[in-house]
Amino acid sequence: MNKENKEKITPKEARQMFRDGLVATTSNWALGYAQANLAILPREDAYDFLLFCFRNPKPCPILEVTEVGSPEPFTVAPGADLRTDLAGYRIFKNGECIEETQDITGWWRDDLVAFLIGCSFSFEEALINAGVPVRHIEKGKDCPIYKTEVDCIPAGRFSGPLVVSMRPVPSQLVSRAVTVTARFPSVHGSPAHIGNPEGLGIRDLSSPDWGDPPDINPGEVPMFWACGVTPQAVALNSKPELMITHVPANMFITDVWNESLAAL
Amino acid sequence: MNKENKEKITPKEARQMFRDGLVATTSNWALGYAQANLAILPREDAYDFLLFCFRNPKPCPILEVTEVGSPEPFTVAPGADLRTDLAGYRIFKNGECIEETQDITGWWRDDLVAFLIGCSFSFEEALINAGVPVRHIEKGKDCPIYKTEVDCIPAGRFSGPLVVSMRPVPSQLVSRAVTVTARFPSVHGSPAHIGNPEGLGIRDLSSPDWGDPPDINPGEVPMFWACGVTPQAVALNSKPELMITHVPANMFITDVWNESLAAL
Repeated sequence: MNKENKEKITPKEARQMFRDGLVATTSNWALGYAQANLAILPREDAYDFLLFCFRNPKPCPILEVTEVGSPEPFTVAPGADLRTDLAGYRIFKNGECIEETQDITGWWRDDLVAFLIGCSFSFEEALINAGVPVRHIEKGKDCPIYKTEVDCIPAGRFSGPLVVSMRPVPSQLVSRAVTVTARFPSVHGSPAHIGNPEGLGIRDLSSPDWGDPPDINPGEVPMFWACGVTPQAVALNSKPELMITHVPANMFITDVWNESLAAL
Repeated sequence: MNKENKEKITPKEARQMFRDGLVATTSNWALGYAQANLAILPREDAYDFLLFCFRNPKPCPILEVTEVGSPEPFTVAPGADLRTDLAGYRIFKNGECIEETQDITGWWRDDLVAFLIGCSFSFEEALINAGVPVRHIEKGKDCPIYKTEVDCIPAGRFSGPLVVSMRPVPSQLVSRAVTVTARFPSVHGSPAHIGNPEGLGIRDLSSPDWGDPPDINPGEVPMFWACGVTPQAVALNSKPELMITHVPANMFITDVWNESLAAL
């Protein structure tokens, strides 16, 4: 088993490689399986965060919440250990990143709760399978991401703006891109906004807040999906005493087939 | 305005009537608007209850969670007061019902959180509109409800069995009944189980745990939807210090159109 078969290895094999010390981004690893964003918070902040995610399901679709003090995601990856099975972690104290590490066993505490949040990789696979082109993948670039002027619904100490990713889609495929992604509410679901970037307060599509500037062809419509950057940004904004996240693009690989996430 | 126009009055008018002291069950009130189950718990128990609902979305589809200490459901009924706007409440101390009342203002505390949970009235309207007969309504009876031998996924202090309601459906309409209700995940969604009552541990359909025995015609298939009795039963099972619920069939009437609850 080596990195060259990354598309075909199982999620369990991938997690073992990261546990053994491999550092790599997880795009195109274990194709067909859902990957997840990670946010770890103390129990004290977990209720407000869970409620924030419930109130804002498009940016914050939760795949799993661990029991207090347990690092095992017992439904999406039984037996996995969220302290070791990702390639990289960031430690935030009072909203400031103080360390990047490959193992958070030393940081783990009995009062921590881990949230796994759906990732756009899953719905991009669905778009491609349905014949909807995903431009930034075609071009080998990072997806453009924008902070909007639309506020999420606040919950307790958590509040902040919606963050969106943008994919330009030929106008005759816009409906298909909606229906294909609407089947997957647990990985951001259907777009939050279609066309009219000004409606989100985005004045210049060519200057994203994160990622690469987009390549938009004539006749293509910008489609905006709620982005998993939202919950992390909102949580950090409130400066929790401790928060641990994955390093961007170093996702947690679950045992769940993307297709099994289709709405019941 | 009087009870005779109950189908056509607005949710706000209905709530005012209950606030003014009217006692009535809410079936067929304010047709087209979603009604909700109510569960009020102290903040201390709210995280485990919210997580239980998230992990068991079919029996526990949450429509709204109020801010700690606030009796206003600010998204589904802005301006309403959950302490007065239902026709009847039950007060449970340590799992035991100690009082039934029409006003819980005297019981309200700064640490209480109110959960509004989707109700089968909404999907029954969708079934009828789609031409799927709903037998117990046709017969003027109460829907049969069964405790199953299937366990919900536990969360913290909350655990217990799935409770289901049953509607017999002609076999050629079973698919339609699935697709119609699948559009409404926030009011229990598609059935949890279809046919084969033994698979749920139900040995005798004619002896429901609650409601009236069903009338099943030859060739009809029993369809089981997850039931809002589940979260109340599970919560009471854990004997919370204080829990307040609605009186059965005295639901909270929201300002939300049933149709607007269709999955995005």
